Amino acid sequence: MNGAESLLRTLVASGIEVCFANPGTSEMHFVSALDRIEGIRPVLTLFEGVATGAADGYARMAEKPAATLLHLGPGLANGLANLHNARKAQTPMVNIIGDHATTHQRFETPLTSNVAALAQPVSHWVATCRGPKTVAADAARAVQAARVAPGQIASLILPADTAWQPAERAASPLPVMGPAPVSDQAITQARDALLLGNAALLLRGTALRGRGLRAAGRIAAATGARLLCDTFTPRIERGAGRVHVERLPYRPAPTMACLQGTRTLILVGTQAPVAFFAYPDQPSALTPPDCDVLVFSHPHEDAAEGLEQLAEAIGAGDYAPISPCKPPELPIEGGLDPESVMRIIGHYLPEDAIISDESLTSGFLPYPLLDTALPHDHLHLAGGAIGDGLPVAVGAAIACPGRKVIALQADGSAMYTLQSLWTQAREQLDITTIIYANRAYKVLFEELHSVGAAKAGPHAFSLFDLHDPTLNWVKLAEGMGVEARRVEDTRNLTSALRSAITGRGPRLIEVVL
Amino acid sequence: MNGAESLLRTLVASGIEVCFANPGTSEMHFVSALDRIEGIRPVLTLFEGVATGAADGYARMAEKPAATLLHLGPGLANGLANLHNARKAQTPMVNIIGDHATTHQRFETPLTSNVAALAQPVSHWVATCRGPKTVAADAARAVQAARVAPGQIASLILPADTAWQPAERAASPLPVMGPAPVSDQAITQARDALLLGNAALLLRGTALRGRGLRAAGRIAAATGARLLCDTFTPRIERGAGRVHVERLPYRPAPTMACLQGTRTLILVGTQAPVAFFAYPDQPSALTPPDCDVLVFSHPHEDAAEGLEQLAEAIGAGDYAPISPCKPPELPIEGGLDPESVMRIIGHYLPEDAIISDESLTSGFLPYPLLDTALPHDHLHLAGGAIGDGLPVAVGAAIACPGRKVIALQADGSAMYTLQSLWTQAREQLDITTIIYANRAYKVLFEELHSVGAAKAGPHAFSLFDLHDPTLNWVKLAEGMGVEARRVEDTRNLTSALRSAITGRGPRLIEVVL
Repeated sequence: MNGAESLLRTLVASGIEVCFANPGTSEMHFVSALDRIEGIRPVLTLFEGVATGAADGYARMAEKPAATLLHLGPGLANGLANLHNARKAQTPMVNIIGDHATTHQRFETPLTSNVAALAQPVSHWVATCRGPKTVAADAARAVQAARVAPGQIASLILPADTAWQPAERAASPLPVMGPAPVSDQAITQARDALLLGNAALLLRGTALRGRGLRAAGRIAAATGARLLCDTFTPRIERGAGRVHVERLPYRPAPTMACLQGTRTLILVGTQAPVAFFAYPDQPSALTPPDCDVLVFSHPHEDAAEGLEQLAEAIGAGDYAPISPCKPPELPIEGGLDPESVMRIIGHYLPEDAIISDESLTSGFLPYPLLDTALPHDHLHLAGGAIGDGLPVAVGAAIACPGRKVIALQADGSAMYTLQSLWTQAREQLDITTIIYANRAYKVLFEELHSVGAAKAGPHAFSLFDLHDPTLNWVKLAEGMGVEARRVEDTRNLTSALRSAITGRGPRLIEVVL
Repeated sequence: MNGAESLLRTLVASGIEVCFANPGTSEMHFVSALDRIEGIRPVLTLFEGVATGAADGYARMAEKPAATLLHLGPGLANGLANLHNARKAQTPMVNIIGDHATTHQRFETPLTSNVAALAQPVSHWVATCRGPKTVAADAARAVQAARVAPGQIASLILPADTAWQPAERAASPLPVMGPAPVSDQAITQARDALLLGNAALLLRGTALRGRGLRAAGRIAAATGARLLCDTFTPRIERGAGRVHVERLPYRPAPTMACLQGTRTLILVGTQAPVAFFAYPDQPSALTPPDCDVLVFSHPHEDAAEGLEQLAEAIGAGDYAPISPCKPPELPIEGGLDPESVMRIIGHYLPEDAIISDESLTSGFLPYPLLDTALPHDHLHLAGGAIGDGLPVAVGAAIACPGRKVIALQADGSAMYTLQSLWTQAREQLDITTIIYANRAYKVLFEELHSVGAAKAGPHAFSLFDLHDPTLNWVKLAEGMGVEARRVEDTRNLTSALRSAITGRGPRLIEVVL
């Protein structure tokens, strides 16, 4: 057994089942071990940003970490933006980053870099294997670190010789540090605040699904409290039969307006609302001055269990108001806009679908249309680094092979990790990608105004507009093996979407707005 | 005048003419200022790896830095791999990285990150603007830092409020620290070593072009010394009328064989050869044990001037042996392999072409065929982080609008930064891209063997092979507005290449191997 084999056996024993990879020479022994040790499915991505984003999507749905396999500092660097997103989503992940052999590191070579320094800003835990015999223990610790509640980024650097030299054994899984209980004091304080009235619960994490969400609904029914969630939340269960949660708006002014009149804002696994960006003469913190903020649970605490206890503490009944099953009606026939697109999607959305949402400006307003669609999971870009929508869809599809994944994807952001489409085709993933082709970084036209800069002149225009030349998403998708169609009206979107949803496998629909 | 305007005026005054950009909200005031202040051409890229790679290619040809404009930590992160490459190529570059307003940084937001920590591993100089009134001075220092010989990566972090608040004035350019003279002692020692015989000069930087290269040729003619260059050298002038330099092989064993019998290896702006990767039971340092190593010049020293002095010191005549003008003959008609492709390229290569070479396995063996083609510049991937070939071509084309750029590009690596093609089309750059479509990470099949791992099983095969599905480069290029053609034989490559070379503007040729 060599170090790579001891590593792989340890990962398998610790529950890792999938590795999103783009290896190089320094990872060859890990790759070779994949053929001798069963239990890990390697998934090739043609760019590391796809690997890290897919591992994020996988873990959000599987509720356990995937591994990534990255090639030295530059391979890691290419994956950093989606590691940033995964970190903000509190996603568990184990990165295995190859490096030069320990004997080779004192030389300056083209690929020599400080891998640990690159990993640090996005990782909760970084370690470097010091020798082949400690690789297994390091790997067990990496998985343990990743699984610390609510989820952490663990990066293990594997010098090539620690992988190829002899090792002795695999390591047993280490105990997982699950969520801590919510304190009694927090429950008492939240109960008192709820009974005062005009309270709102701002929910994140496990409070947005399953029994956590149901308990929140019971509390709302019993006290009249509002249920809110962050603008960008890693995962939320929505649709018919689920408790309805209001999404906070993206911009500062409507967020403050939304919270106006709230006496207590009760934080469940999240923080008080902050503006996404600063704007001149606008506040960053968006909680109204006369609103008290109460921390009910921290992200590492068991919000679902805590909310159930809170429901008991206030004497809530079993009743929780759930959304009716009333998918949006189809739009009037004609051209497409964000609302008509969302109506068609919501109308045909299959039960248990997973939505990977990086629709950005096209998705904000029509978002509530899915409240009464068939039940589904909705995943958002949590870290603001564009280019996670398509990779997250890849990971979600691998985590949940029986469920249809719908990627709602802005065109400018899609270009960041369009290589995802190839992995969709390679793995024949059941993903329907909707490209919102507004052919602009549309948000930036709005932001130029919001920050108080002048109207866009020709230079600014050239940096926001994507018309010259127009991206042809049908060709881009077909170029990577994904069946694709361009639609410009409701009738064609309806037929393209129905065909994609009744079929299986990857499809892309370019929606011209 | 606001901070952004003072920044832009300072950059213009310091000689910056181009900015490769992908801005976001935090960079809006910089963008807006581009419309009010003349002198900087903004070039939009659809992914930051294209921006940093293009700035690298630009500076290698323009011999001065371009600026990049990047959006907070994640925008920088996406550009890091090509910043790594630029650092290894000793390229001057000024990165302007937007960040949240200073008042906003204490909040946790989706895009909050440690920008300086991400910049550090790839930068020689990092600074953060502390207020609007120091932005101009910071910018002048950034350009100065970038221009320290032989070239440095300078990263200036610009919080949004330092850009939008009032500033007073632009800053004047600061003096540039040009190359230091080569020491008299080094010249004397090199002279003595050359006169002993069996010496080789290993050249990099300015020693590989213009008067540096000519002086090296005179020295070789006078002493019989061999002229060598690194396997991957940022820029070399080659072809008819230029002094011929041997390229060191990629793999360790042939490199050691190539240096066998050398009494003294004289380093001119580079280091003694080191293996690209470590292999079990193989040395990392590749200089034969009986070969002395002599440092003639460090990278920051003036190799060109030093070589001229050395030529005088040994009493070299004016004669330098130059390559004849004898472009390679066309291959026999039939299917394509790396040699026949290179023959056709070399046969039709126009005078003063610039070759951006990321052909990797397809390019090693036939490389010498271009020795006698028309004179041209040859740019290599210097940092080993795949995905710089297409962006470097973009930057070179912008630096040298009158010259034809030919990108020799491996298919797997091309996928890393394929968004480059859109900028080629947007800017109508005169670039002909040759995709070597071997549909594999071919080098990895070889490396699996080299590192002593087992033969590729199905998992390893799935991580190296790109056949399922096959990338269609014609569709990918057309999807981004670049005219493209697929060729599978010599006749069609010849006609496609002639058409691309006689025409102007971006073309892509997918060469099926």
